Amino acid sequence: MIHPRLHKIAYGGDYNPEQWPREVWDDDMRLFRLAGIDIATIGVFSWSLLQPSEDTYDFDWLDDVVERLHATGIALCLATATAAHPAWMAHRHPDVLRVDFDGRRRAYGQRHNSCPSSPTYRRYAKELAGRLAERYGAHPALAVWHVNNEYGGRCYCGACAASFRTWLQRRYGDLDTVNEAWNTRFWSHTFYAWDEIVPPNLLSEHLDERRTTFQGISLDYARFNSDNLLACYLLERDAIREHSSDVPITTNMMGSYEPLDYFAWAPHLDVISWDSYPALDTPVSTTAFRHDLMRGLKDGQPFMLMEQTPSQQNWQPYNSLKRPGVMRLWSLQAVARGADTVMFFQLRRSRGACEKFHGAVIEHAGHEHTRVFRECAELGAELEALGDTVLGARVEARVAIVFDWDTWWALRYSSGPSVDLDYLGEVLAWHRALFDRNLPVDVVGVDADLARYDLVFAPLLYMVKPGFAAKLEAYVAGGGRFVTTYFSGIVDERDLVTLGGYPGELRALLGIWVEETDALLPGSGNRIVMHDSSDGFATEYACDLLCDIVHAESAEIVAVYGDDFYAGTPVVTKHRYGNGEAWYVGSRTDAAFRTDLVTALCADAGIAAPLTVPSGVEVTRRERDGRRVLFVLNHNDAPCDVDLGPSVFRDAVRDRQLTGAVVLPPKEVLILVERSTTQLR
Amino acid sequence: MIHPRLHKIAYGGDYNPEQWPREVWDDDMRLFRLAGIDIATIGVFSWSLLQPSEDTYDFDWLDDVVERLHATGIALCLATATAAHPAWMAHRHPDVLRVDFDGRRRAYGQRHNSCPSSPTYRRYAKELAGRLAERYGAHPALAVWHVNNEYGGRCYCGACAASFRTWLQRRYGDLDTVNEAWNTRFWSHTFYAWDEIVPPNLLSEHLDERRTTFQGISLDYARFNSDNLLACYLLERDAIREHSSDVPITTNMMGSYEPLDYFAWAPHLDVISWDSYPALDTPVSTTAFRHDLMRGLKDGQPFMLMEQTPSQQNWQPYNSLKRPGVMRLWSLQAVARGADTVMFFQLRRSRGACEKFHGAVIEHAGHEHTRVFRECAELGAELEALGDTVLGARVEARVAIVFDWDTWWALRYSSGPSVDLDYLGEVLAWHRALFDRNLPVDVVGVDADLARYDLVFAPLLYMVKPGFAAKLEAYVAGGGRFVTTYFSGIVDERDLVTLGGYPGELRALLGIWVEETDALLPGSGNRIVMHDSSDGFATEYACDLLCDIVHAESAEIVAVYGDDFYAGTPVVTKHRYGNGEAWYVGSRTDAAFRTDLVTALCADAGIAAPLTVPSGVEVTRRERDGRRVLFVLNHNDAPCDVDLGPSVFRDAVRDRQLTGAVVLPPKEVLILVERSTTQLR
Amino acid sequence: MIHPRLHKIAYGGDYNPEQWPREVWDDDMRLFRLAGIDIATIGVFSWSLLQPSEDTYDFDWLDDVVERLHATGIALCLATATAAHPAWMAHRHPDVLRVDFDGRRRAYGQRHNSCPSSPTYRRYAKELAGRLAERYGAHPALAVWHVNNEYGGRCYCGACAASFRTWLQRRYGDLDTVNEAWNTRFWSHTFYAWDEIVPPNLLSEHLDERRTTFQGISLDYARFNSDNLLACYLLERDAIREHSSDVPITTNMMGSYEPLDYFAWAPHLDVISWDSYPALDTPVSTTAFRHDLMRGLKDGQPFMLMEQTPSQQNWQPYNSLKRPGVMRLWSLQAVARGADTVMFFQLRRSRGACEKFHGAVIEHAGHEHTRVFRECAELGAELEALGDTVLGARVEARVAIVFDWDTWWALRYSSGPSVDLDYLGEVLAWHRALFDRNLPVDVVGVDADLARYDLVFAPLLYMVKPGFAAKLEAYVAGGGRFVTTYFSGIVDERDLVTLGGYPGELRALLGIWVEETDALLPGSGNRIVMHDSSDGFATEYACDLLCDIVHAESAEIVAVYGDDFYAGTPVVTKHRYGNGEAWYVGSRTDAAFRTDLVTALCADAGIAAPLTVPSGVEVTRRERDGRRVLFVLNHNDAPCDVDLGPSVFRDAVRDRQLTGAVVLPPKEVLILVERSTTQLR
Repeated sequence: MIHPRLHKIAYGGDYNPEQWPREVWDDDMRLFRLAGIDIATIGVFSWSLLQPSEDTYDFDWLDDVVERLHATGIALCLATATAAHPAWMAHRHPDVLRVDFDGRRRAYGQRHNSCPSSPTYRRYAKELAGRLAERYGAHPALAVWHVNNEYGGRCYCGACAASFRTWLQRRYGDLDTVNEAWNTRFWSHTFYAWDEIVPPNLLSEHLDERRTTFQGISLDYARFNSDNLLACYLLERDAIREHSSDVPITTNMMGSYEPLDYFAWAPHLDVISWDSYPALDTPVSTTAFRHDLMRGLKDGQPFMLMEQTPSQQNWQPYNSLKRPGVMRLWSLQAVARGADTVMFFQLRRSRGACEKFHGAVIEHAGHEHTRVFRECAELGAELEALGDTVLGARVEARVAIVFDWDTWWALRYSSGPSVDLDYLGEVLAWHRALFDRNLPVDVVGVDADLARYDLVFAPLLYMVKPGFAAKLEAYVAGGGRFVTTYFSGIVDERDLVTLGGYPGELRALLGIWVEETDALLPGSGNRIVMHDSSDGFATEYACDLLCDIVHAESAEIVAVYGDDFYAGTPVVTKHRYGNGEAWYVGSRTDAAFRTDLVTALCADAGIAAPLTVPSGVEVTRRERDGRRVLFVLNHNDAPCDVDLGPSVFRDAVRDRQLTGAVVLPPKEVLILVERSTTQLR
Repeated sequence: MIHPRLHKIAYGGDYNPEQWPREVWDDDMRLFRLAGIDIATIGVFSWSLLQPSEDTYDFDWLDDVVERLHATGIALCLATATAAHPAWMAHRHPDVLRVDFDGRRRAYGQRHNSCPSSPTYRRYAKELAGRLAERYGAHPALAVWHVNNEYGGRCYCGACAASFRTWLQRRYGDLDTVNEAWNTRFWSHTFYAWDEIVPPNLLSEHLDERRTTFQGISLDYARFNSDNLLACYLLERDAIREHSSDVPITTNMMGSYEPLDYFAWAPHLDVISWDSYPALDTPVSTTAFRHDLMRGLKDGQPFMLMEQTPSQQNWQPYNSLKRPGVMRLWSLQAVARGADTVMFFQLRRSRGACEKFHGAVIEHAGHEHTRVFRECAELGAELEALGDTVLGARVEARVAIVFDWDTWWALRYSSGPSVDLDYLGEVLAWHRALFDRNLPVDVVGVDADLARYDLVFAPLLYMVKPGFAAKLEAYVAGGGRFVTTYFSGIVDERDLVTLGGYPGELRALLGIWVEETDALLPGSGNRIVMHDSSDGFATEYACDLLCDIVHAESAEIVAVYGDDFYAGTPVVTKHRYGNGEAWYVGSRTDAAFRTDLVTALCADAGIAAPLTVPSGVEVTRRERDGRRVLFVLNHNDAPCDVDLGPSVFRDAVRDRQLTGAVVLPPKEVLILVERSTTQLR
Repeated sequence: MIHPRLHKIAYGGDYNPEQWPREVWDDDMRLFRLAGIDIATIGVFSWSLLQPSEDTYDFDWLDDVVERLHATGIALCLATATAAHPAWMAHRHPDVLRVDFDGRRRAYGQRHNSCPSSPTYRRYAKELAGRLAERYGAHPALAVWHVNNEYGGRCYCGACAASFRTWLQRRYGDLDTVNEAWNTRFWSHTFYAWDEIVPPNLLSEHLDERRTTFQGISLDYARFNSDNLLACYLLERDAIREHSSDVPITTNMMGSYEPLDYFAWAPHLDVISWDSYPALDTPVSTTAFRHDLMRGLKDGQPFMLMEQTPSQQNWQPYNSLKRPGVMRLWSLQAVARGADTVMFFQLRRSRGACEKFHGAVIEHAGHEHTRVFRECAELGAELEALGDTVLGARVEARVAIVFDWDTWWALRYSSGPSVDLDYLGEVLAWHRALFDRNLPVDVVGVDADLARYDLVFAPLLYMVKPGFAAKLEAYVAGGGRFVTTYFSGIVDERDLVTLGGYPGELRALLGIWVEETDALLPGSGNRIVMHDSSDGFATEYACDLLCDIVHAESAEIVAVYGDDFYAGTPVVTKHRYGNGEAWYVGSRTDAAFRTDLVTALCADAGIAAPLTVPSGVEVTRRERDGRRVLFVLNHNDAPCDVDLGPSVFRDAVRDRQLTGAVVLPPKEVLILVERSTTQLR
């Protein structure tokens, strides 16, 4: 449970009353009650009001907001307001302004605009967080601390350069080690003094955001920047902790957000929270991946859905409305995959500036007689009915996908073999193969305990960090099933190639040697010809992007290439290693291959979906204290027949029992408590 | 009449003899005579010659040019030469250099390069204009003052920042009002001191030229910049007026040019002049719109076609030749829509630098034996024959289209609902529906007197300025017909949403409530299903881009959507209001719908084209003192049969009378004086 | 012969042992011997090691490298190491950092990063070159001096601005002449003091890299920059010459590299060397053109293939492997067209930084059991067998194509008539017509002696430099055949239009007047209708891009346009002039026309290929002292039948004789010594 104050799925979102005259606030309370809203995130962008000048603080208006919400029975998710510095601060202390990738000191504007190394910013951010904690830390309405907002971006200023050098000193000790890590003898880059090191950007090592001439420094700068922003978070967190010891502290994340290594952040958050903004063309499987990743950050612990839009967004190129039912469907998808809150940005729609066309529970019309409000209120009532049924319940998975920010960065910066190398895309592709079959999966980091899984995927494992190869060997030797794909085992954590033959440290485990890697032009491909098409495999699949030219040393050849000068050489291998097996897939395969391999491996491991359902229907299960709650979500635009089987389920929201064949209308969601566990309630 | 010196359609253009040795000047005079040229624009880019140093002025060469032209009988359009500052000025006074959108102080180069706030630039520009006026203000050849050249662009320097703050103080009085106008409580942007405000550019609020995070400041900066450049114009105008009281002053505009609000400029120009440079794919209807807009700036007063190319341009990606007859056709199209001059850039083609491949009356061959020269000379003779027939005559229209720069800017900066929102495009589309049927139309600003029109279109009237809703209500109540389209009535002049339900201030007039606005992906669409397909309407039309979800409150439903979850809800409504009617078209329609609606409304209002002609034939009428002159222009590549009807027309150029059926060769133009009015001549 | 030390086709490449621990060096020597490697380029990027600080030099490690290579029998191509300055230098002396086209001072990073005007850079570069020459200049292993590396890019800093002004003073003498050359009266650009001139970049005259508003200054800056980098080369060359008088000095060029006028550089190099990196889609004909150009720089003298990749590249978007046989095929193509060395970048693959995925003889596996190593070793053995057979032999051609950097720059900067104007593309197109028929061709500059050729092409001869028109007239009058194409004869070397009618100075020679030039939109075209389709010509061809509207004055009309308003006017003309003929092709033609015209003209001149072979087979001949060596290269993916005719050839590599019909496997190459000359060996 996130906080005792939150005894059901908390429902609400960002609330910015400071943008409105007080007469509107009363109506807000009325409408919140109508919509079943019981949590409000406040203060996110109010620094300039809370601290109107260097030495002045003004909390009166916030006191008022807090009391009104409290009086309305609404819990507080209180932000530290440091996500956008005031204009006076930028004017008086230009060190708070970032220097961008192009090397330009920015002027005042936008948000998320503070240099994380700025002494001014750090001093005032810490001060504000402390004052807020002192004032509200013990308030009975307080449920969650919301530090800053969507930390992100990168800064390249002189202060960051200095911090980077200090970070390097801590990481490497001396310059010789830095020079070795970055292979600086290449292109005469040897550094003889720390000050010679400058941030890697468009003025120095980079040709564009992705293309760098020195992967080592770029990779370390990505790490440093993530750590540097984390240091800002920690500064505020510690300031809060001094005054508010028992309220959980979080900062809202952004799913698969490249600049921040959330696995490094997660231990410092009491609860994970994140903002879900799928684009129009984002597959629901991708949203599911992001939920799984967020859930994986703290080892399966439920998370907060901190933001989503009730209707449309404003910053997409084309901001279509969420169709009727879709807001509910996607809200409950989050719950189905581990969310214990459903929150919106925003409760009341702004009147001016760039988010005025972003959806809100209360739209510009200002009343409750809108489709959007009605759908929000209906969901509010439903969550009320759901009560604490799933609160704190976990998704149990026997399959894991390894995801690693360092690998993402290293591949992003790679010069060759193909610009279309896409780490996230490859991970998503394998996740989707599991998602489409409703096979529960955890997304985990390289530090996770693999022993609890029967099947582990680590697609495109380009970088093998210290100890990870040994960990994989132990896992497989102990009976695990392991799958990795092309261009894996290439480098160590410094992005230095592991010499002696690819896949380097994974060679013994996989039983192969990759001699060369061919890069294919867009639109061209090769064929995967299976040696044996039993076990549900087809005789052939397509592949593209990269083709590793593989020598099976001790591995068994599962499939060979069908074309090109390496036709007949291995593309898929399986290596029995100890009591388990290690698979290598030497090219980017089509979806059919991934599905068939996933299916075969899961069948082999005795892993099954909670329910067998038609395509486009998502099924998950959350469990706690023996209670099992089944979620069935119809993402299709048409009704679907779902067979619940002989068990009798209790509908957790509506007063009914279900069993056998049911028809799921389009976008419908069922939350079903398995009968064997209903006694618990 | 622009000036008594110009007693026929003045014919000529830009002349830069300073680029040529004097022996060439003599030949220029010979060739001008051959071509029938009687006006020359001189001095446009001669600042560095007129003022070779800080304290030195040299007018001797210009005296010579003036006298030679005068001796040849050529009137002067005398430029103030301030359109490009000298290199010495940039070198000594870097404040004359602009800071660009990216925040970079520019180095010396190009043209239109002066910061409008630069004290140096303003001082010297005023000084030069004054000296020129003192010297030439009473010259008998002088017909028009040409201030600067194609004012444009934007500057973001410190001096402009300071001017912007002063401008804001004048507009808003105090900072609280600014904060409210820009809704600065959003994203913690509250300003506590004027100096905290910095120009909105790529370093501050903007993500790119269009995308800003604060529409309010960006919109005001656009207004300020237009005003700031206007101030430069006024400075020169006033300096001229001190010495030259009876010669009209203008500056050449650029049609539908986004950065300058020409409606705000127009009152300060004695005559509108503009440069027409259609691209290869510019429809003739768009050129027509620009002429109509330029004519509308000063309430229908004839304007000067200041520049066009005799043959090809140089700065398009592909600079095709104007086909035989096209230069004449487009010249006379300008006259047909209100031009009282036909002028070229340029009379003699430069030998070097970036415009050497731009067309000219006298090409590099240097003689008259070219196609281009021959066509120019033929038109010269024709204009000679035309004499003063149309001089000062007006185009009379009973239909108006409202066009508004503030709305253009506000929509351009809008974040959501669709990046494809295109104000100019929507206005052009409705204008084209009228153009294609040869229905005379005025393009007017929001300050225009609407009472004189029977039909007013204000497409995409996103912003409703103070008093405009009331004005529209009075117009319709008085019997007017009004049409507006989707996403209208959303904001006030501060770009703050009008609360309480869209279309805000237009709600009473239109009798509708727009609950939501759906944004459609490119390539997708909806259908407009008509309730009643009589009156020439089809049963169905297509629409796309945005779909307003409309509740007809007191309006009549004319058509409903055919698809999507809002199928069956209104898309076109008509509201009887007082003695008139107000139409709402809630989506971007196909051309057929626009044409059919325009046709029905004009028929209803008894508005007809001057002549019924085949497609691709343009017809206009100019009138003065009871004389009616008909222009018939065949834009087609094929001959067209045109029926002039029973009236007998006098050909204003050739010695002949025309009546009944005539065949118009491709690209041919007829200028016909209606017989009933010929007595006047 | 490049150097007596190189008594066969030298085989080797870039070697960077400083990136590796010494234990690896021993294995390197073993592997070099296995691969038949006998030359190594060393020191290219070792400045920071050779000079670790302001006053310290360390040559010990290099001594070791030199001795090991010498002991292994490997010749040295010794680099001066100045291609990337050390980080300490950038840190202490920011003047070594370039200012980029956007006007930004760069920070430390990448390579080729030194400002060519920097006093610091020049001082230290000269010092280092001198010290290296002093230490190694007389070493018995030394065969070639390799100055810097791939000189290139442009700098726009203040020091370059000052150098540019000095360069202008030398070129023009006084400012009046500069003003005239740049036509500065246009747009008020007159300069009154040298300091007013600033480099033309994005902050001054340029809209982007290609588009400038003043072609004159941009063109001169391109010339200046090429000269300025050349001055850096000369500084090092002279420093070397003081200590090393008999070892040839070179710097590696990059084929058709736009920023440097290699014709101006060539006289200062003892031997031309270049780096050949065809992209995946580069036609082999383009590689052939580059070889021909490099050979043409020094009048046919054999050159060094200094770099190519053994397998894949890393900086292309998609870095496919070189297919089996292709590395050998392309290596021998270089030899076939004039190379006397075959060298790779690189001998051992780096472990880190951006080139770690660039191919190498020794790959990351680190041993000889790879496909790539095997192919390298096989070619090494083949070159050993070939011995000195072709060393110093020349390709004899009777056809020349004129190529000129100034014209390339001027057309690149041209504003109009079409952005698709492509000088290099037009030259390549005509070269390809010759290449496809295996007609030997020299690529020459405008200073070449044309008298030795029977046929000269100067496609798109937009700029006619002083004396070149007269030279062409003399050449044609003396019996030569000359062909030029559209948009030629337009400007002089200042990019000022030659007045009086195009093609200006070429008008008498070509016997035509071009009145206008139409620019066609992409996808549109015109037709070339032949007057006479005998001589192997078709009746019609296609053309596009530009259409010159031509008046045949004294020329004969060969073909006319088929379409548009200039249908029936000449597009191809032939002018008998003295004893020769001058052709004009007034539009961009299809490949068929070029092939047919080339074929007809060669037939007329009695020029034939060395051998008639199927399509896709390349044939060249190198000759020396009466020995004629034939190269036959099958670029096809399929075997080809080649008829060697009745002559008997000795295979220069394998112990066999060949005659009559032979079958060439895919990618196979034959090197055949003609029997009549075998006695010489």
